[in-house]
Amino acid sequence: MITLYTDSSPNGFKITIALEELGLPYVLRHVKIDQDENKQPEFLRLNPHGRIPVLVDDDNGITLFESAAILLYLADKTGRLLPLAPNARWEAIQWLMFHAASVGPIMGQRVHFELFAADRNLQAVARYRRLTNEAFATLDSRLAGHPYLAGEAYSIADIAQFGWTHIARIIGFDFSQHHHLSAWHERVAARPAVQRGIVIPAPALGA
Amino acid sequence: MITLYTDSSPNGFKITIALEELGLPYVLRHVKIDQDENKQPEFLRLNPHGRIPVLVDDDNGITLFESAAILLYLADKTGRLLPLAPNARWEAIQWLMFHAASVGPIMGQRVHFELFAADRNLQAVARYRRLTNEAFATLDSRLAGHPYLAGEAYSIADIAQFGWTHIARIIGFDFSQHHHLSAWHERVAARPAVQRGIVIPAPALGA
Ligand SMILES: N[C@@H](CCC(=O)N[C@@H](CS)C(=O)NCC(=O)O)C(=O)O
Ligand SMILES: N[C@@H](CCC(=O)N[C@@H](CS)C(=O)NCC(=O)O)C(=O)O
Repeated sequence: MITLYTDSSPNGFKITIALEELGLPYVLRHVKIDQDENKQPEFLRLNPHGRIPVLVDDDNGITLFESAAILLYLADKTGRLLPLAPNARWEAIQWLMFHAASVGPIMGQRVHFELFAADRNLQAVARYRRLTNEAFATLDSRLAGHPYLAGEAYSIADIAQFGWTHIARIIGFDFSQHHHLSAWHERVAARPAVQRGIVIPAPALGA
Repeated sequence: MITLYTDSSPNGFKITIALEELGLPYVLRHVKIDQDENKQPEFLRLNPHGRIPVLVDDDNGITLFESAAILLYLADKTGRLLPLAPNARWEAIQWLMFHAASVGPIMGQRVHFELFAADRNLQAVARYRRLTNEAFATLDSRLAGHPYLAGEAYSIADIAQFGWTHIARIIGFDFSQHHHLSAWHERVAARPAVQRGIVIPAPALGA
């Protein structure tokens, strides 16, 4: 059986969406970041970096943190959500890595400086607006010619990316001028597994 | 034949080190970032995000950007630098993803605010010092019990991570208090392929 340690947040949604899409049974362990549960010794034994998501697979004793590693693992375990043909497979992995290394962390910095930083930091806000818009433009150029990031097939690259465009919509990071990216977002958002995944675990009241 | 588009920089070194370690023949194309060669239409056709490294494999027509994707590709192509046993394999992939998503981008932000930003931004400098030190501590805790990030075997996870600790040393981001990480750095730095990889392409004069 799979156990998923997660919270209602972008990196967590990637895994709840994937598990729902794959129809894999799993036990949910809600790690409340706003109560510092991710900094407790019990959790740090699973991820010394103190971040969600973490997945534990009892079938083989594998414990994994980092959402992109978990997505690759679930695709490998099931043989799904990652094309098998080499060209499409490496496109999917490339765009998953693009998300993981070049989009997610930059969105995270923008969230910090726009929403959480104690003092308004105009230089940092401008930097991360510019960099997220560059990333949106890159995604838009890819999606101009293809329905999904890997090409024809919906894959873990789309799931990873959606975790963050979903949050971007909620907090008002506008990407509506990127028409292909916006159309892709609607296409992914319409999937039943996505609609289930983004409300697991239930968001905190008022969030 | 493989063609590598790169510059003398941390994400580029990951691939020159891997290619040297694997002994794969390759053609080097030096993309000079300081002359904006990465923003020219010819290069943007390879990577619409305008970043190095990019690898093109003529054997199968695969073109890839994102250093973590390229490292996974080279390991897959050769069956080397990524353990085959599931536990060690997923450890390697997890630490590669940790590097790609949680260390590299954060080091990049620290480099920007400490070395390149036009105005001194103390809030941002403090943030990225704290976050890089957290990442160093996480790596150190892993390396306390294992010679390499995947466990016993040297892998693409070490190569990716080394690309950035190498630069950290050069620009004075101190991690000497993290003894296991420092010992690991020396261990990796001593490898002949690493010594070759970090001077390809030759650094610009004065850099
Ligand atoms: N690169 C990591 C990022 C994980 C991450 O930052 N998770 C956030 C929630 S979306 C977290 O646990 N934050 C808690 C904290 O920073 O203390 C991944 O993709 O899994
Ligand atoms: N996540 C990417 C990052 C690539 C990246 O930022 N490369 C730098 C050189 S180390 C670059 O091309 N910078 C040029 C620019 O930002 O204009 C990867 O791992 O390949």
